[in-house]
Formats: sequence, C-alpha cells, structure tokens
Amino acid sequence: MPTATMKALRKMRPQEGAQLETVPIPTIAPDEVLVRVRAASICGTDLHIYHWDPWSASRIHPPMTFGHEFVGVVEKVGADVTSVKPGELVSAEMHVNCGHCRPCRMGQPHLCQFVKILGVDADGCFAEFVRIPVRNVWKVDPAIPEHYAAILDPLGNAVHTVLAGEIAGRTVAVTGAGPIGLMAIAVARACGCSTLFATEINPHRRALAKQMGADEALDPSAGDVVARVLEATGGSGVDVLLEMSGHPTAIQQGFKMLRPGGRVSLLGIPTKPVTLDLVPDVIFKGATIYGIFGRKMFETWVQMTELLKAGRLNLEPLFHERMPLEKFADAFSLLDKGQAGKILFYPNGSLG
Amino acid sequence: MPTATMKALRKMRPQEGAQLETVPIPTIAPDEVLVRVRAASICGTDLHIYHWDPWSASRIHPPMTFGHEFVGVVEKVGADVTSVKPGELVSAEMHVNCGHCRPCRMGQPHLCQFVKILGVDADGCFAEFVRIPVRNVWKVDPAIPEHYAAILDPLGNAVHTVLAGEIAGRTVAVTGAGPIGLMAIAVARACGCSTLFATEINPHRRALAKQMGADEALDPSAGDVVARVLEATGGSGVDVLLEMSGHPTAIQQGFKMLRPGGRVSLLGIPTKPVTLDLVPDVIFKGATIYGIFGRKMFETWVQMTELLKAGRLNLEPLFHERMPLEKFADAFSLLDKGQAGKILFYPNGSLG
Amino acid sequence: MPTATMKALRKMRPQEGAQLETVPIPTIAPDEVLVRVRAASICGTDLHIYHWDPWSASRIHPPMTFGHEFVGVVEKVGADVTSVKPGELVSAEMHVNCGHCRPCRMGQPHLCQFVKILGVDADGCFAEFVRIPVRNVWKVDPAIPEHYAAILDPLGNAVHTVLAGEIAGRTVAVTGAGPIGLMAIAVARACGCSTLFATEINPHRRALAKQMGADEALDPSAGDVVARVLEATGGSGVDVLLEMSGHPTAIQQGFKMLRPGGRVSLLGIPTKPVTLDLVPDVIFKGATIYGIFGRKMFETWVQMTELLKAGRLNLEPLFHERMPLEKFADAFSLLDKGQAGKILFYPNGSLG
Amino acid sequence: MPTATMKALRKMRPQEGAQLETVPIPTIAPDEVLVRVRAASICGTDLHIYHWDPWSASRIHPPMTFGHEFVGVVEKVGADVTSVKPGELVSAEMHVNCGHCRPCRMGQPHLCQFVKILGVDADGCFAEFVRIPVRNVWKVDPAIPEHYAAILDPLGNAVHTVLAGEIAGRTVAVTGAGPIGLMAIAVARACGCSTLFATEINPHRRALAKQMGADEALDPSAGDVVARVLEATGGSGVDVLLEMSGHPTAIQQGFKMLRPGGRVSLLGIPTKPVTLDLVPDVIFKGATIYGIFGRKMFETWVQMTELLKAGRLNLEPLFHERMPLEKFADAFSLLDKGQAGKILFYPNGSLG
Repeated sequence: MPTATMKALRKMRPQEGAQLETVPIPTIAPDEVLVRVRAASICGTDLHIYHWDPWSASRIHPPMTFGHEFVGVVEKVGADVTSVKPGELVSAEMHVNCGHCRPCRMGQPHLCQFVKILGVDADGCFAEFVRIPVRNVWKVDPAIPEHYAAILDPLGNAVHTVLAGEIAGRTVAVTGAGPIGLMAIAVARACGCSTLFATEINPHRRALAKQMGADEALDPSAGDVVARVLEATGGSGVDVLLEMSGHPTAIQQGFKMLRPGGRVSLLGIPTKPVTLDLVPDVIFKGATIYGIFGRKMFETWVQMTELLKAGRLNLEPLFHERMPLEKFADAFSLLDKGQAGKILFYPNGSLG
Repeated sequence: MPTATMKALRKMRPQEGAQLETVPIPTIAPDEVLVRVRAASICGTDLHIYHWDPWSASRIHPPMTFGHEFVGVVEKVGADVTSVKPGELVSAEMHVNCGHCRPCRMGQPHLCQFVKILGVDADGCFAEFVRIPVRNVWKVDPAIPEHYAAILDPLGNAVHTVLAGEIAGRTVAVTGAGPIGLMAIAVARACGCSTLFATEINPHRRALAKQMGADEALDPSAGDVVARVLEATGGSGVDVLLEMSGHPTAIQQGFKMLRPGGRVSLLGIPTKPVTLDLVPDVIFKGATIYGIFGRKMFETWVQMTELLKAGRLNLEPLFHERMPLEKFADAFSLLDKGQAGKILFYPNGSLG
Repeated sequence: MPTATMKALRKMRPQEGAQLETVPIPTIAPDEVLVRVRAASICGTDLHIYHWDPWSASRIHPPMTFGHEFVGVVEKVGADVTSVKPGELVSAEMHVNCGHCRPCRMGQPHLCQFVKILGVDADGCFAEFVRIPVRNVWKVDPAIPEHYAAILDPLGNAVHTVLAGEIAGRTVAVTGAGPIGLMAIAVARACGCSTLFATEINPHRRALAKQMGADEALDPSAGDVVARVLEATGGSGVDVLLEMSGHPTAIQQGFKMLRPGGRVSLLGIPTKPVTLDLVPDVIFKGATIYGIFGRKMFETWVQMTELLKAGRLNLEPLFHERMPLEKFADAFSLLDKGQAGKILFYPNGSLG
Repeated sequence: MPTATMKALRKMRPQEGAQLETVPIPTIAPDEVLVRVRAASICGTDLHIYHWDPWSASRIHPPMTFGHEFVGVVEKVGADVTSVKPGELVSAEMHVNCGHCRPCRMGQPHLCQFVKILGVDADGCFAEFVRIPVRNVWKVDPAIPEHYAAILDPLGNAVHTVLAGEIAGRTVAVTGAGPIGLMAIAVARACGCSTLFATEINPHRRALAKQMGADEALDPSAGDVVARVLEATGGSGVDVLLEMSGHPTAIQQGFKMLRPGGRVSLLGIPTKPVTLDLVPDVIFKGATIYGIFGRKMFETWVQMTELLKAGRLNLEPLFHERMPLEKFADAFSLLDKGQAGKILFYPNGSLG
C-alpha cells in the first residue's frame, strides 16, 4: 500500500524553476487508476514550463506537478475499473478528451476542443504516483522494453506524423532532428520509406540522424539544402516533408523541397506566425498539409505497440541519462544544451 | 472547310493591352484536333494577361493568342484520332501534361512539373479556331447547355476545390464570392453540404452568393465575420473552408473560422506570401489543407459532367454579357469593375 | 417523477410473439440517463425477434424488452451526467461498445467485438421508459421533426452506407427499396449523386423509390435489370452499388451492374452464404467493397443531423401508421405485408 | 541494326503447347519502342496459355507470341519518341489502356474496360525483340539488378496488393505463398507490417515464406489455421488479409482470420465462383475489400522502384533457373511441379 505522501516535482509559483515537494498521494475516483511511476521522461514542453516561457505563463496554473511521459505499475484501481489491475505495467495518453465536442463526435478525440492535458492542465507524472482516468491508461505489451515504454508519448507524435499519409516507397525530408525528429526518421525507415534526407544545424544531432536511418543529414548553415534535395531527386523534390523543427526557415525550406503533389506533416511548433509562399509552395504545387497534434486515440498507440513488439524500431541511440527526481536541476540544465537525448527520471528509486 | 486565315485576340508585345489579328488557321498534327470556337469565356488570368501584371510579364511570351475557357465544334481531326469526329461539341482541358515527370507517374497529371497551358504558354481559344491535343479534348454531353459548356474550366476548379475532401453533411465557409467562389457555393449545396457561410466585401457578389445557395453572406468590412461563424457553429467553427479569394486577410480569417480537425481547400491566388498563425490554426487544430490547382484529369471532368447532366447545378446567375470578339476592350473594362459575372466571346458570330 | 412501474413490450419466452407487461421503471447508474419514450419505430430486426427466427433464437435471452429506434425526453440523469439534462429531446445510439477491443482502439467503435445492443442484448425502447448510458445519448437538434428523430437509427444506416465512399457526381444503383434502401436513395440524391437506378420487386416500393429520388425504378422480375443499367451507362456500369436487399440474386446482379473501379456498400443481410463471381466482378474489376454495420460513432450522427437540419431530406413518404403500444400485434401484422413504411409506437399516449 | 528475323516462342494453334518460330522483327509506329529482350520471366498465366486451359481458349487468338514479364535494352525508337533512347535498360507495363473509357477517365487506367495485354492479346516478350507503346515503357533505375527488373510485373502485383491500404504497424495474413505471395511477404515486411502469418500447403513454399519474412508459416492441411491466427492475435484476428492463392478454402479461411474493421486485398484468381459467408465475415465485420488487378499506372511502378533502389527488398530466394528460350519445354515442366521460383528465359543468349 502507498504511504500517505509522496515526492513530486512541482511548479509552485508563476516563475522560472520548480521544487521537489512532499504532497498527498492522489485519491482516485471510481473510473480512475493510481500508477506508481517507474520512469518519467522529460519533454521540450517540460523545459518550457520549467523556464516559464510565454506559452507556459498563459496556460499553466501553479501549483502543479508537471511531466507527461512515463511508464509505471498499476498500484490501485477505482471501483468501476475492470480493464486493468494492480501490478500491470502501463503508460497513458495524457490528453484527456471531453467526448462531446464536435471533433470528439467526429472520431477525432485527439483534437478535442476542451482537452485537458495531465502534466499541463492538471497534475502529471514527475512524482512517485500519478492518477489517470482508466480510458486513458495504456497497457504496455511485455515485449516492449521498460525504458521504451517511458517515451511512448513522443514516439506516438512521431508515428502520428509519419503515418498521417503514405510513406512506403516515398522519398522523405525530415526538417529538424530533435528527439521526435529522430524517432520519425526511425519510423519512416521501418515503414518502407525510400531515400530520406534530414536537415539539422546541430552536428551531434546530424550524426544521430544518420544513425537512426537518414541517408543524408544536411547542414542548412553550410550550404543550400533545398538545392541538394532537388538535385538528389532529379529536380522533383521529395514526396513527403516531415516538419519537426518549428523553425520558420526550416519550414520554408521544407516546402521548397517538396514535389508537386507531395504531402507535408507539420509537427514542430514555431514560436510565432510563419510567412509561407502559398502560391508556388502549396497551391500550384497541389500540396496536402496535415497539422499534427498529439496521438490518434488510440490508433497511434496500437501502431507503435505493433512496431515495437515486432522489433522494427531501434531507439537506443536516443536515450541519454537516468536520474533520480532529486537531480531535476541537472537534468534541465543538460537539456538546455540541446543534445537530442531523452533523460529519464526514476521517482521511485532504482534507475531501471 | 476552314478558310486559310482567322481572327484571333493576341498579346503582341510585352505590355498592357491586346490586338485583334488575322492569323493562319492552325494546322494539326496526327494526334490533334481543330475546333471551331462557339463561345469562349474570360478568366481572371486573361485579365492579368491583358493588363500585363508581373506574373504575366514573367510567364507569357508574345506574340500569343490567349483564352483558355471555351466550347466549340470539331472542325477537323488528325490522322491518328479515333475518339472524336467532326461536328461533335467539345471543350478541352487546356493544361497539357508531359506524362513522364513524377507527379504524372504518380497519378497526378494535373500537377505535372512541365505543364504547358494553352492560352498561356501556347495559343489559346480567343480565336475562330483552336488546336488541341486529342487526349485533352472533352466531349460535351448533349444534356449540357452550350453556355455552361463554355465555362467547364472554372467550374472544374470549383468542383475540384469542393470535392477535394468530404462535403456531405459538413458546415462550410467560402471566403470570396468571385465567379469560382460562387460556383463552389452551388457545387457544395448540390453535394449535400450543411450550413454554408460566404464572406465577400462586394455587395453585388454577396447577393449572388445567397442566390447560389449560401445560408449567410457576410461582409468582412462590416463586422467580425469570424465571431459570427463561431457563434453560428456553437463555438466550434466550420468543418470545411473553401478559400476562393486569394486575399491574405480572408485566408487568415478563414483559418480562424475552421474547427479543430477541419479541412481547407486553397484555390485563391494571393499576390505575395501570406503569414499564417500555424500553431493555433493548423498544427494544434490538426487541420488538413489541400492546395488546389487545375482539375483532376479527368475525374473532375466526369464529376462536373454528371452534376450538370443530372441538373444539380443552376449557374444562370453567373452569366453576364455575350459579345463578339471585336468588343474585347469593352469586355475587359466591364470585368475590371469587379462584377462576378462571366462574359462570353462568340468569335464565329451569332451570340449563342 | 416517474411512477414505479411502466408498460413494456417484452419477449417473455423463446418462441413466436410478445407480451405487453408491467415492469419496474429502470433505475439508472451514475453515468446513465432515463428517457421517457415519445415515439419508437419498428425495425426489421424487431420483426425477426417477434417471429423468433433462427437468428433471434441464437441471440436473444428472454425475458427482454425489445425495440431500438426511438425519440424521447430525458426524465432523469445519473449523478455523474453533465452533458444532458431533464427535459431535453434525445435519441440514442443503441450499440454500446466496450472501448477496449482492437476495433474500439483503432477508432472503429461501431465494429466493437463485444458490442451490446440495447433492445437485443438488453432492454430496449418499446416501453414507457428506457435506460441509456450517457455517452450513447444523442441530443436531437430542435430543427429536426420529432417523428424524424424516431428513425435516426435506420437513417444512420442509410447515411453510413451512402457516405462510406464518394457519392457526388457518381452514378448509383440501389438494390432493394425497403425502408433503409428508400432512405439511402434520398441521402444519395441530397449528396449530389448523378443518375440513380433502384431495383425492387414490390411495385409499391418501386413507386416510393421514384418519389424518394430514383431516376429509374426497375423490376427484376420483369426484365434484365443488369442489361438496362449497363445500357443506360454506356456499357460501363454504375460508379456505386448500394446493396440494401440482402437477397442473393440482387447482390449478384448488383455486382454485374458495377463498373470497373466502382464502389460497393453492403448493408442488406442475406440469410445464408452467397456465391460471388469474384474474378470478373471483384478482382479483375478492381472493386472496392465496404461491409456496413451500424453507424459510425458518432460521425454518422453528426452527418445526418446536419442533413436534416439543413432540410436536405424529405422522409415523409416513409411514414406509415402511428399506434399505441397496445396495438403491437396489428403493427407487426401490417409489416409482415411488406410495405416499406415505418410504423411508430407512442408508448406514452398521444400519437405525435 | 537488328537483322530481319528473330526467334519467338509462339502459340501457333488453339491447343496445348508452343513452338519456337522464326518471325520478322516487329516494325514500330512513331510512338512505339523496339526492345531487345535480355531476360523474360514466366508467369502462371503463361503456364495457362501453354497448357491451353479454358480461360486461354476463350481469350487467346493464335498465332501469338506470349510472355509479358521482361527486361531489355532499347534497340530503336519511333519518330515521335523523346523520353527514351537506344541503349537504355527498360521494362514495361504490358497492360495497354484505351485512355477514353470511364475507368481511364477516373484516374484508374489499370482498370481500363478495353485493356489490351501484350503477351495475351498481342505479341509479347518471349522473343528476341518486343514492340511497346512508348507510354508503357518503364526505364529501369541503374541501382536495380537486371534479374530483379525482369520480374517488375509480378512484383508490381505484390506491391499493389500490399499497399492498397495501410500496412505499417498492422498484423497480416498472407494466404498462399506462390511467387507473388512470397513477394507480398517481403513487401509487407519492408513497409513496416507487424506479425505476419502465411498459410501454404506446399512445405517448400512455407520454408520460403519464412525466409521472405513471415513470422509463422502455417500448413492448412495440418491443423486449424484460423484458430491459430485468432489465438495469436488475442482473439481479434489480423488487421490485413492478403489473398494470394485463389483457392476457395483459403479465401474463406482468410476472411475468418480477419478482425472486425480489417482490410482484405484479393489478388489470387479462383477458377470458379466462391461462396462467402457475407454476414459475419464482411457485413457485420465492417470489412473493406479491394479487388486487385494489374499495377497502378504508374504509382505502383514508382513505389517498387523506390523500394528496390533503397535496398528494402531481398528477392534472391525467388529466383530459380535461367534458360535459353529453346529449353521452354523444360521450363514449363519444372513450373508444373509447383515450386515457387521464377524461371528466366534469355532469348538473346548469355544467361545473365
């Protein structure tokens, strides 16, 4: 049985930083599940919350426990829960949809107009325990390594981005090789893409991009990446653009690399509006563009489970340090340096 | 038999204006068809060519006969032509694709990288006769009125725009009620759309929008059209945005009117790059955006033929004046005034 | 407040017939809603249950209140219900999905492997009151006539069938003009189909088919309907087959009427396996076939609501008699005669 | 320059067998290409023609040179040909479409109602030279091994079958492990499928199925393959069925293995109509079924070229013997024994 209190990494005030606090272990409703967190992974969003950027200031209401990528063991289930039981290894979709708005009713719950994100709008997983509505709990297949299961949330972003359109036998450009960009490279390879070009300024990430399966990892600061991709595709451009950077220049370059009739998935988050050359790059090109948010509930979860179970994805190069929750300041400081590796917290002790 | 020469409206020099010239009747290759033009309709593109705007200056090589919307009667066929014969009523897809580039090979010939447009890149239909490759000739079903057949090219743009995604039972916003926007309203109605909002500054065009089937025709200069559409859709926004204006503000408003998970078809041609608020309007919204160019070859032609044959479209309100080719200056001057009506030339005499 | 008991039409024993019983008004769980039934409509399935056919004998566990098409007023809501309140007009999706099986997880809850159907597997709506899980309740838009709202369940089948693929500008064959076939005709017309052929042996239903929008209503007992459809489509066959009869011969004829590359939606329920000429009719034809079951949850409900709100469907010709629940024997007897009209029960008195 | 005559393997009379004949080298039209055949591969269809089965008797008009899978070098091009030139390595899509029927106009030229197949309806490639319309010629990427290029036709069938719907992260059943079934296994694996089950009676082919990437190769004669697949998929069944056998029992078993909401691609050719249990297996299951014929023109060709160029497919286990054309009787006799390997003819001498 859990003790009455637990450790939690919390944003206590509307300002830079966070604090390790002792708080009551959550009590659960009849349709909720209490999970003992094994490993929690840090997302770029957590870094924004930690540094209290303008987006965080407009969205987050302290005090709040953050963190939304994790794997854990079911500790306790609510009275109405039948689909999971204590002792099972689980992760969770942390976007909780309303079920009644138009997107929810149209089979697009991942685009719910009233979505509540655990770790953003309510307490998350940087804690010994986290409380999850049962329909958001995802049972982890025993064939999946535990540390992989800690990053299903961002891997799901990558899978959603890649599989939003056809990928088999398609040439691909991935703009931006941060963690999700790198995962997208691995997923695209596993799903039969043809030649894959990555663009990324950071040389360490370019090396990782090659390791994950990119045929060419191009440096936009060192040459004309658009010209290179056009040349390598016989002047046509790539069939598919996966935009993972959120950087305006990369977005614009990505569109210039796209062939007429190509497909774009936009996942990277620009910090302000972006100017697009709509006529040549979208309209006359007959481009198809998908905005990508979250993970399809739960098709994306099924797809990534299957890819992982079948051993189609090697994500080892993405993992960096494992730390106790107490070392959070070191963790955020490491991430500020811009390496693409994922850092895992182990709030309940032993580092995996 | 055709005489040796014919009248043709031609751009003779790289400057404003055009001239009615006497030129040889085209000779045809074995796989070409000579068509006696019954009626030719004026497109916004023709107005740009006439006024020699920057796009025209960069693309058009005078001397050249322009015009690309028409209906006519087959006068003569090349030696290898078996699919049409003299006397048949025809129109044509004026985008001639190469057949070998990647979009052509991927089943997207309307996005050919080496497309040659008759009336833009080679002689068009503002003449007594026009020469067309046989595979671009479209036989007009006898059930279709002749003047409707003269505007299949822009009607095809509208059909392509509307039917790029699902429309039945969808709420719709049409931004811009020029001729193609008005046709799109009629097509969306015929194809089972639900509530349809049009936005348009010109009051005459707003009246036409209602006549073509819009439930509300909103004036963006007189109030907050985004707020109105959100209110009328219970706060969600519309399922589908059909952007027909090319105006940056209308494009931006259109995206704000779109519900999460909605679909956008972009047909209007902005004159310069457009700044989009990608995060809230595309990425977090999970929007699907289609750039629309030309007409699917020839699925769009089949679809519009079927809609017209079955009497699903009343386009009468769109027709304005009928004129001999000699009155071209009057025609372009009328169009400069911004009424949405289509003007038809009758190069071979009798006005329909 | 409801009284403690109510009338209900129940199958009491595993045999032909049914009985009007007095039973306790259902008590509701925290996530359920109690609805006072205004009008309930009889489905072919109810007729099967009444007559205790082999399917019923294998599926139904008496005693059980049947009926699954209705409109009513919310009488009372469970403690956790916030999305509807007493006094609101509602209908319901009577297929209750599990939420955890693979189809549920893949965004196909209408194909749940463990679906429980109210009125088949648990008590239904042929009663003064019916109990519904809140997430299956559908609020009826005030613009929709009450008697239309009583048949949303079968109308949803028709909408699902028609909109499973493209319909705008498509030629269509509807094989079988029972109630759902007739609704499908109306829906296809409203959604922009081109020429529509119906096949139906019953002359009264053929007349209704024309009234609902069929261009031709053909009698398979009086001539070669396949030859007629091929002739009328220039030898190609129709773009879309909507199979609504479940009759083996009609199914086989339908496939013969389909053009190469066409689409089939199969909704009608044959009573035994059917022999198909797969090579010419499916494989070499490159046909796309959709099995149709239930309604997409809840995209179909949104679509039909929008079509009805916008006044796109005239279903008046489908309605037949209105009766008190007590006259159930007359109702089933009328339906045995094979007219396509819907019969409505009014369990709470006044006949609409 | 070619000499005036060449060797060709021809069906001379409407009966069993074939003869090696000396015939004139074909002369080409302005839009045709003459190809010197390097290697030609034998298809099951050729075996049917050789043995003069009922289908052949109804379709083939002797005398005729058969064979439709090949790679060769352009010997000579017609006067209007600009897209290929002598010396280039090419294969060809041997289905010549009309360009004018409804499927052709709807963007489905592979389903042309008036298709003419070279090697079936006109002279094919079991000869020193073959004549091809230029728009059907496919330039072979230099990265593709010559013997792989000889089997692009059946590989295209496999790619078309697999990629007719989503495959990434999907569980798959392949019923029938003949040459195209084996290729489909390799393609599905390369495109990110999850667990793949093959069913096949021939033990040699089962071994090949494992070698090509099947997780389990099941013997339908030795146990309940449906039960095994359901068990291995947690009772749900597979997401995707690829039917490659044409055997009625395999087809029926395949449908029983499919999960609700699953996808079926039917490529195998049954010799007579097949009885399907439509209600449980298609309708209530909400299955999506695609009939597969030929290759998408030319999307499938692009996809397989990209997969081959990128080294995603190892087809070596499929190749069996290489023979001069003179040994045709040995070749057909070997194939009659039912091994799945492809046999290549080398009509111009040196065996690759």
